[in-house]
Parts: sequence; structure tokens; C-alpha cells
Amino acid sequence: YELTVADGDVVGRVNGLAVMGEDSGIMLPVMAEVAPAQGGGQVIATGKLQEMAEESVQNVSAIIKKFSDVDLSEKDVHIQFVQAGQQGVDGDSASITVATAVISALEDMPVRQDLAMTGSLSVRGDVLPVGGVTHKIEAAAKSGINTVIIPKANEQDVMIEDEYAEQIEVIPVSHISEVLDIALTGETEKDSLVDRLKSITGNALDRQVGTGSPSPQ
Amino acid sequence: YELTVADGDVVGRVNGLAVMGEDSGIMLPVMAEVAPAQGGGQVIATGKLQEMAEESVQNVSAIIKKFSDVDLSEKDVHIQFVQAGQQGVDGDSASITVATAVISALEDMPVRQDLAMTGSLSVRGDVLPVGGVTHKIEAAAKSGINTVIIPKANEQDVMIEDEYAEQIEVIPVSHISEVLDIALTGETEKDSLVDRLKSITGNALDRQVGTGSPSPQ
Amino acid sequence: YELTVADGDVVGRVNGLAVMGEDSGIMLPVMAEVAPAQGGGQVIATGKLQEMAEESVQNVSAIIKKFSDVDLSEKDVHIQFVQAGQQGVDGDSASITVATAVISALEDMPVRQDLAMTGSLSVRGDVLPVGGVTHKIEAAAKSGINTVIIPKANEQDVMIEDEYAEQIEVIPVSHISEVLDIALTGETEKDSLVDRLKSITGNALDRQVGTGSPSPQ
Amino acid sequence: YELTVADGDVVGRVNGLAVMGEDSGIMLPVMAEVAPAQGGGQVIATGKLQEMAEESVQNVSAIIKKFSDVDLSEKDVHIQFVQAGQQGVDGDSASITVATAVISALEDMPVRQDLAMTGSLSVRGDVLPVGGVTHKIEAAAKSGINTVIIPKANEQDVMIEDEYAEQIEVIPVSHISEVLDIALTGETEKDSLVDRLKSITGNALDRQVGTGSPSPQ
Amino acid sequence: YELTVADGDVVGRVNGLAVMGEDSGIMLPVMAEVAPAQGGGQVIATGKLQEMAEESVQNVSAIIKKFSDVDLSEKDVHIQFVQAGQQGVDGDSASITVATAVISALEDMPVRQDLAMTGSLSVRGDVLPVGGVTHKIEAAAKSGINTVIIPKANEQDVMIEDEYAEQIEVIPVSHISEVLDIALTGETEKDSLVDRLKSITGNALDRQVGTGSPSPQ
Amino acid sequence: YELTVADGDVVGRVNGLAVMGEDSGIMLPVMAEVAPAQGGGQVIATGKLQEMAEESVQNVSAIIKKFSDVDLSEKDVHIQFVQAGQQGVDGDSASITVATAVISALEDMPVRQDLAMTGSLSVRGDVLPVGGVTHKIEAAAKSGINTVIIPKANEQDVMIEDEYAEQIEVIPVSHISEVLDIALTGETEKDSLVDRLKSITGNALDRQVGTGSPSPQ
Ligand SMILES: [Ca+2]
Ligand SMILES: [Ca+2]
Ligand SMILES: [Ca+2]
Ligand SMILES: [Ca+2]
Ligand SMILES: [Ca+2]
Ligand SMILES: [Ca+2]
Ligand SMILES: [Ca+2]
Ligand SMILES: [Ca+2]
Ligand SMILES: [Ca+2]
Ligand SMILES: [Ca+2]
Ligand SMILES: [Ca+2]
Ligand SMILES: [Ca+2]
Repeated sequence: YELTVADGDVVGRVNGLAVMGEDSGIMLPVMAEVAPAQGGGQVIATGKLQEMAEESVQNVSAIIKKFSDVDLSEKDVHIQFVQAGQQGVDGDSASITVATAVISALEDMPVRQDLAMTGSLSVRGDVLPVGGVTHKIEAAAKSGINTVIIPKANEQDVMIEDEYAEQIEVIPVSHISEVLDIALTGETEKDSLVDRLKSITGNALDRQVGTGSPSPQ
Repeated sequence: YELTVADGDVVGRVNGLAVMGEDSGIMLPVMAEVAPAQGGGQVIATGKLQEMAEESVQNVSAIIKKFSDVDLSEKDVHIQFVQAGQQGVDGDSASITVATAVISALEDMPVRQDLAMTGSLSVRGDVLPVGGVTHKIEAAAKSGINTVIIPKANEQDVMIEDEYAEQIEVIPVSHISEVLDIALTGETEKDSLVDRLKSITGNALDRQVGTGSPSPQ
Repeated sequence: YELTVADGDVVGRVNGLAVMGEDSGIMLPVMAEVAPAQGGGQVIATGKLQEMAEESVQNVSAIIKKFSDVDLSEKDVHIQFVQAGQQGVDGDSASITVATAVISALEDMPVRQDLAMTGSLSVRGDVLPVGGVTHKIEAAAKSGINTVIIPKANEQDVMIEDEYAEQIEVIPVSHISEVLDIALTGETEKDSLVDRLKSITGNALDRQVGTGSPSPQ
Repeated sequence: YELTVADGDVVGRVNGLAVMGEDSGIMLPVMAEVAPAQGGGQVIATGKLQEMAEESVQNVSAIIKKFSDVDLSEKDVHIQFVQAGQQGVDGDSASITVATAVISALEDMPVRQDLAMTGSLSVRGDVLPVGGVTHKIEAAAKSGINTVIIPKANEQDVMIEDEYAEQIEVIPVSHISEVLDIALTGETEKDSLVDRLKSITGNALDRQVGTGSPSPQ
Repeated sequence: YELTVADGDVVGRVNGLAVMGEDSGIMLPVMAEVAPAQGGGQVIATGKLQEMAEESVQNVSAIIKKFSDVDLSEKDVHIQFVQAGQQGVDGDSASITVATAVISALEDMPVRQDLAMTGSLSVRGDVLPVGGVTHKIEAAAKSGINTVIIPKANEQDVMIEDEYAEQIEVIPVSHISEVLDIALTGETEKDSLVDRLKSITGNALDRQVGTGSPSPQ
Repeated sequence: YELTVADGDVVGRVNGLAVMGEDSGIMLPVMAEVAPAQGGGQVIATGKLQEMAEESVQNVSAIIKKFSDVDLSEKDVHIQFVQAGQQGVDGDSASITVATAVISALEDMPVRQDLAMTGSLSVRGDVLPVGGVTHKIEAAAKSGINTVIIPKANEQDVMIEDEYAEQIEVIPVSHISEVLDIALTGETEKDSLVDRLKSITGNALDRQVGTGSPSPQ
């Protein structure tokens, strides 16, 4: 059977990318929903998450909690790695995928389904490098994806074959606000949301104005 | 002894379907009851659930919490895999069974007992594919069931033998609202309930109106 | 030493029946007490319960919470498998025993000690079949018990020897309200309690009035 | 070094008795203290308790909660198996010892130190039989103890040697109220306390007035 | 490097003593701090504590909760075994060290650093015997300590070599109030504190006025 | 790829230093962020922390809670070991790194990125010695760092090669207030913060005024 969604816009669904074994990529969608809290407001992630993946969900929540207008103490945030299967999910390379799915569900703003992404995330919004970007981009291309978001620090790791290079656009990013600017649809509301996110995590983005020129690539 | 119920309507009881070993199906009923909460309102599932099954119960609760008029913070929801035995239940293919049993108990609306079902569920109400549909349909037929609900994405996996094909109707569905429309009895209240569920999870259903034509089959 | 109680009426004490090894039964009493809650109102079961036995206690509590006039959020319910020993208790065949002991303690209504019982329980009050009924009945007979309650679905499994058949009456039941009607003493209060239990779990009992004739035997 | 206390009266300290290995007894004191609760009022037991011993503490607390005038939701009850060492404590034969130590601390009533005790406990106050009574009585005698309380159901198990038989009085009991009547000092307050305990657990004691003559020995 | 502090007075720091391997002592300082609680007021102990050491911290807290004027439900008490290393701490022989460090931090009263101590503790304030006192005293002497507090019940176990015997004073104690009288500085406030502690745990100290003469040595 | 940041000033980011294997150092940044609490205000640390590292985070929080003007019961503090990878972090040598990152995030004061640090921490603010300082300093030098903070008690352990000695300044410290004075930028606000920290942990710093001359080196 076939679960791939590679075009249209859907709220709360993002095409993530993972590595299987040594040298093979796979598209792994993440879905999110926000519901009234039963107790004190929890983040509930399913898909047999291993330690690094669980921690990645906690890092994402640091950003969501600062960003959201919604009072999260009255909401349960459900995050689902839809086709994780028996093996489950390890690593933190789905962090920007999870962040995008949750923000889409919270704000009711659709996500482009012709787009896939991979990237780790700092608690302050920096997009951090991950492994296997080339295999992941090829998996996205095979699934009919047009655009892949990767961490800027992984830019030099991309070595995709010519057949895919023509089909797919690879966009390197260094902050979660860039991810949302590309992945969400609905220009007006989106730009307002991206601005809000930038102003809140301004400290991190403003680091270039310091006494030197830090280069977290 | 014989615990099969294959006709009539019962509140809070749904005929689920599971796979045993490699190539054999079994009917595994799920029962639900809603009681005043002792503490803060919990979802309590029994039947030796393994990790994927426990997570499936959490995914179901994402939908129940959005859907229900009942204040679930004052209720304990009990879910029982009645004949799970020592081996317990793994996998998430009972997700739509659990959702139907709980909604039946919450709304006091009977479920058709001449019907069995299998299907995974996204946190936004999509019915996702499962394994072993052919074996499961045959097990339902052997138990005297008339109708089996399966995920639309599993439609092409059905290869049942002629003797069963005549006896049993297989209905593929892609959203939990379709499951309830088929499984619950009492036309007037049910249609109102199904409409409510559709409007709440509208975002997910409305994805066809996006810029493309996504096909999550 | 000798702990058997096989006549008289005692509040909060019920003669349960268990299987030891392959082919031997044993009488295993369950005692219950209800005390002011120290925190938020808990169900506390002791006797080295393994997973299925712990889950069975949770299933019982689904019924107690719906049934009881007492505000259980202000009570701790203590359940004790009195002679469980180092091996502890597994399985859910003591579910009706636990339910009876707790309701007796809650309502201060004595239980017949010349009676023993075995049976699993659904969250909606159905008595479900168990294993080893013949060995259990013989163990009860050897302990001087007059009456044994078993699940209706186990009726055809009973193959007791003649010497015991004369001594002991076996009563098959299909709902927890029947168990209480037989096991509790004090006709007036008991009938009112049994009626209340029947009305609350009416949905389950009323299933015969559905469109067919379900037979959960 | 020597920690034995075998005469005088002390609040919150009771000489318990345990079995070591196959055929040797040991005196194992239990101490209790009640302090203002830091959170919601807990029972905190130390001494490397294994499962049965932890459960025995919970069974004891069923009785304490019904018995005590003190609002236990505002108190932490500390129970200490003083010389348990690296091996810790298993089994539930210290249940009456724990109950006596806690009631002594709660009510500020001293316990006789020339006395030792062993016995399990039902949640309704019955003293239940234990193993190794003969070895335990001899250990008490060697420690200079005058009086040993044992469960009535163990009366026929006592086979102590002549040298100890002259030195030590063995008192069989069947209810926790008898234990306290013997172990606590201060006749007036104690009798009032024992009466209160008897009235509260009256159901259990009144079982002899039933339709038969139950004999839980 | 060198972390030994063997003179002066410091708030919240006490020189504890531990045994390493079979026949070697080591000085192991304990530090405590009291901070506004983040949640409901916790006792937080670090230094890779094993089971007996964790339980010892709980026994200490029974005394602190009765003793302190400070509302501990609004405070977090942090206890740190400073140089515990990868092996962590086992046993309960640091109980009086922990009690002294915490009371010093709570009351802002300095502790003598020319002094070290070892001793277990009952929940009612009795100092209980420990192992390895001779090795511990020698470790304290080698570290330049003048005074060592040990349990009275260990008095006869002390067999230190002549060279250390001249250098170091060994003080046996039987109650935590004696420990504080010796270890804290600032005569006026301290005497008031020690009197308060004695009056609160009076029952335990008053045991000599019973009908006999108990000797918990 | 390259994630090193060795100049400029960033809020909530500190260059920590760790040892890999036997004789090799590595720079391991720590990032912190403070967000509105979802429940009761938690400290959430990610990066596969092992026991000693988790305990080190708890020790740091003892200081933060006393120091901060911010009401931490309404905040979640997120701490991220950014490049910890699959191996995770063990040991407590990142304690001063964590403390600096969290205080920077809480107070919105940037941290110098041309600086790295290593050091354990007592609950009262003392900087305690760690292992592998020489390897750590060389790793910092190789990453282009100008200044390294180490514990004063490790001063004599530094044996760096000439090529690095010229490039890098090593500053030994004995209290967390010195660490912040060196690592934070923004002279005016910082001095006020450092003064506040000194006054709060005054007891520990004032120990030199005691009756002797303690030397915790
Ligand atoms: Ca939404
Ligand atoms: Ca834009
Ligand atoms: Ca109902
Ligand atoms: Ca319809
Ligand atoms: Ca009662
Ligand atoms: Ca009747
Ligand atoms: Ca007292
Ligand atoms: Ca008397
Ligand atoms: Ca202080
Ligand atoms: Ca004095
Ligand atoms: Ca900030
Ligand atoms: Ca300065």
C-alpha cells in the first residue's frame, strides 16, 4: 500500500526524512494535533521513540512554549510518527519536522506536502546538522517531493546524483523561522507568525552583532 | 467455551480483529466503560498491552478529547481487550476498534455486533493501513460476521476465498467518521454525532481543497 | 495451620478459587477494607499480584466507581489476597471475588463463607470464562464449601467426581449482579443493591433487546 | 556491639522477630515516628524492604487510617526496620510489629520492651499465621525477652526447648486489638484505645454472630 | 589535588567518614543547602546514592521535619556527597553527617571543620552503630582532624594505633542532640537549638524513666 | 561540518569541555532557554545524561533557585548538551558550564564565546576539581578559544604544551561568582548580578573568617 502525500497542503502533517540502515533514506511523516488537556497539559509523542528522539521532542517544546499564544497548560499536544513501525525512531534529526507539525496544528496553518525536511534544533531555535542528508534527499526525490529543507551546516555534505538534482530543490536553513517561512502556506498569516518567532528568539539571531563574528555552520 | 457475539447491538463493545502467528486471524473484542474519575480523569487500558498498543490508545484519546461533549477530566475511561490472554496485544491495528468502543460508551450509542473492524488511526482521524487484512476478514467470516471495516489503503490487499466472499461485505474507509457512521446504530443521534466529528476534524478532511490532490491511500 | 472459613457470614471476605500447577485447585480468600483516603483516593491491592491480576483489579474498579454511592475520591480501597505467599497471584479469574469483597466492605453487607467463586469480569459487568473450573470446584468441596459460583460460559467444562457432586452446588452466572444476589446476606438491603447495580449497568444486560440475539456464553 | 533492648517502655519501638536462613531466629526491632507532612502525607518505610514487606506496610496502613484520630493527610509516618542490614526484610510476618510501632508513635503510648512479637495481618485486623515461630521464640528468649506474641493459628506449631519454656511466656492472639492490649503500657488510655479499635473493626470481630461458627485459626 | 578542610567553621558542610574496600577509611564531606521550593518542597540528595544511603536520607528527614521551625513544604533541601565519585555511596553510616549538614544550612549555624563524624540514626534521634570505626578514625587523623564523633554502641570497637590516639579525641554519642552540641559553633543559639531538639524527641530520651532500664548501646 | 563558535557573545550558550576516552579533550557546548512552565516549573536537561550528569544539573539548580529574581515555579528551564551524540554525557565536570548557560538565559546577559570552561560545583557555589584539565585546555586551544576557566584545585594539574601556552589564558577560580564575572559581558549589569550572587552565598565565601583557615583547594 501507499501512504505518500507529495502535494497539496495539510494542517498538522509534515514529511520528515530518516535514514534506514547504512545507506538508504526513507520518508517518515509526522502528524500533530492539539486537544483540550485532560490533566495539566502534556506533550504526548508516539511512534516507539527512543531516548534521543524523546529528548528532541522536549527541545522542540522549549520553542513552542515561548512562541505560542495558546495557553499550553490547558492543551495536550499529540505528536505521531505515523509509519515508525516496530523499529521506532531514534536520533534527533526530526526536530524541525516535529516543530513544524505542532506549530501548524496550533495555528491551524497548512503545511506544503510537496516538501520534506530534516534537521536537529537547539532550544533557542538554531537548526543543527544531522547525518545522511544525501540519502534523505534521494528518498524525498523518489517520493515525488519538489523541495527539501536541510541544515545550513550540512550544505557541503550534499552529493546527490544528477537525475535527482534536476528534480529537487535543496534549501539550507539555519533557524526554525526560515523553516516555517518556507513550509507553511497562507502568506499573510504566515509572515506575521514568522516575525513573531524571530522577535521572540531574537537573542539567538542577533548574535552576529556581538564583538566578533560567530559562525555556527 | 464460546464468547463470540455476532449479532445484536451492544453499547461499549466492538468486534476487533487481530493476526495470530504468521497466517491466522482471530476476533478480539474490545469493551469500554466510562466511570466517574477517582483522581484527575485517566484512560485505563487492560489486556497486557505492549508498547505500540499503548501508544495507539493515546492516539485514540487525541480524537476523543476533541470530539467529546463530556468533560473527560471528571471521567475515567476504561478500555478492555477482553480475550487478550497471557500473550497480550501488540501493534496499533485496533485503534479504530478502541475509538468506536469508547465513543459508544461515552455517548451511550449501541454498536452493531454483526460487524468487525481493523485499522490504525492518525491523531487527526485518518484511518491508516494495517497488516494481515485477508486473514482477519476470514476470521471474521468464520465467526459469523456479516460486515468488515478495513482501511481504504488496504483495499488492494484483500484476497479472500470465494466461500467467504459471498458471506461477508468488506467496506474500505479513510476516516474515523465513516467507521462510526457504519458501526453505530440509531440513525438520528448517530448522524448528528458523525457530523460533529467531521466538523471538528474538518482540517484533515478538507485537505483535498488544497493546491494539489494529495492521496493518502 | 488452618485458615479455612467455610461457614458463617463475614463483611469484606470472599472465598476465591485458584489453580496451582497443572491439575490442582486451591481456595484463596480475598479480603477488602475501605478507609479514609490519605491522598486522592487509591485502590491498593496486595498479594504479589502479577500483570493480569493487577489489570483485573482495575477492571473491577470500573464497576465499583459507577456503582457506589460512596465518594471513592475520599476513600482508599484496600484489597488483600490473604494467602498468596511468595508465588503471588496471576490471571484475572479472581475478578468477581475481588468485586464481591470490595462491595461487601463498601456497603457493610456480609458475604456467605460457605460459598466460593471464580470468574473473570468485563468492565461492563459481564462474567467471563476462566480456566480450571473442575479443579477449583473440587478444591472448594474439599474445604467444606457448599456452593460454588462459576461463569455461565464455563458450564460445559464442569466434570466433577460423584463424591463431590453430591456435596456441592454449582451455580453458573453471566453478570456480576447475579453473583452479589447469591453471595451477600441480608435480603432487603441486598435486593436494593442488586437492583441498583442492574439499572446502572443496564446497557450491557439489555443487549438481548437488540436487533438480534447475541449469546456471549 | 549490642543494640538489644529487653526491658523498660519506649514510644515507637517494638521488638520484632524474623527468621534467618533455614533454622535460626533473630530479633529485629521496628521504630516509627510521625512528623508533619512535607507534601500530601506519606507512609515511608526503610530497611531494604522487599515486595511482601512493602505490601505488609500497606495492609497495616488500612487499619491505621480507620483507627486514628490524627489527620494522616497532614502527617508523614516513618517506619524503620532498624537492623535490617544489606539483606533487607522480606515477608509479611512483621505486620503486627509495624502496626504496634506506628500506633504507639501516633498516640504517644509506650511499648513494653520485655516483649517481642510476630504475626501477619489482614486489612480488617485479623492476626494471620507466619512461619518459623519456634525459632523466633527461641531468639527472643536468648535476647532476654519475657513475653512473645504469636498468631493463634500458629499455636500448635510451637515446639520450644525446656530451658526456654520456663523463661518465656507465649501468648497466642487473633486480632490486632489483643496485641495492643498486651504490648502498650498505661492502663487507662490504652483500654480506651483498644475499645476504639474494637468498635471500628467490629464487623470482623462480630463474625461469630453470623449464621454459622467460622473459625479462622 | 586537595579538597580537605580540617579547620575553621563552615555553614552546611560536615566532614563525614566512609570505609573503602576491606580495611581503609576515607573522609567524605557532605554539603547541604536550602532553597525556595520549585514545586512542593523536596529533599534532593546527589552523589550516586545506593538504596541504603537513600533510605538513610529519608530517616534523617523524619527528624528534620519534626525539628525545624522553617516550613519545609516551601523549601527544597539539597544534600550533596561532594567527592562520592563513580562508585557512589552505600550504607547508612553518614546519617548523622547528613542530619548535621542540613540542620546547619537550615539554621545558618556553622559546623566545626576540625571535626569528623560517623553514625547511623533512628527515626527518633538515636545514634545507631556502624562498621569500620577504627579505619574511619585513622582516616580522620591522617586528614588532620582533631575530634571524631562515633556511636556509643561502637565505643568498644575502637582500636586505633598510638600515633593517632594522641592526636585525636574520640567522642561516643547516643543521640543526635549530642552530635549537634559538639559540632555546631555559636554557643547561645546552639544551646537553644539543642534544647528544642531534646524536647521534641523527648519520648525517646525519656525511655530511662520507664519500668526498667533499657540500654540501647 | 563545523559547529564551533569561538568568538562573539551569545545569550544562553557556553563552550563546555569534556574528555573523550583516555587522553583526548573535546569542546561540548551547552545551551539553555527559559520558557513559561506548562505544569509546575521543571528543569529539563537533554543530551543523554547519565547519572552523575543528571545529579550535577540538580546541584546547579540549588544555586539558581537561591539566586534568581525570576519565579522559577512558573518557568521551565531547558538545558541542552548540543553535540552529546549517542554516547551522552557522564560526570559532573560541566556543572559550572550549565550554571553559566542557565543564568545567561534567565538574565538575558550574553556569554563570551572566545572562552571555554570546566568545573564541578557544590550546592553552595564552590567550584570543585575535575579530571583531564590538560587535555581539555588543549582541545579549547585547537578550537581557537582564548581563555579557559578551570577549578583552582586543578591549578597544579595543568601541563600544556608550549604552542598552546602562548595562545591561551588559563584562569583558576574557586567560586561560581568568579566564573560569571569572567564569562558574562555587559559590565554594569554583570557586576550587580555577581554582587547579588556573592551576598546570597556569603556563608560559603565567608568561611575564611572562621576560627581557623580552611583551604578547600
Ligand atoms: Ca487545529
Ligand atoms: Ca515569506
Ligand atoms: Ca454508558
Ligand atoms: Ca448515515
Ligand atoms: Ca465497613
Ligand atoms: Ca434475592
Ligand atoms: Ca510522638
Ligand atoms: Ca487491659
Ligand atoms: Ca543558609
Ligand atoms: Ca553546650
Ligand atoms: Ca532569554
Ligand atoms: Ca568585573
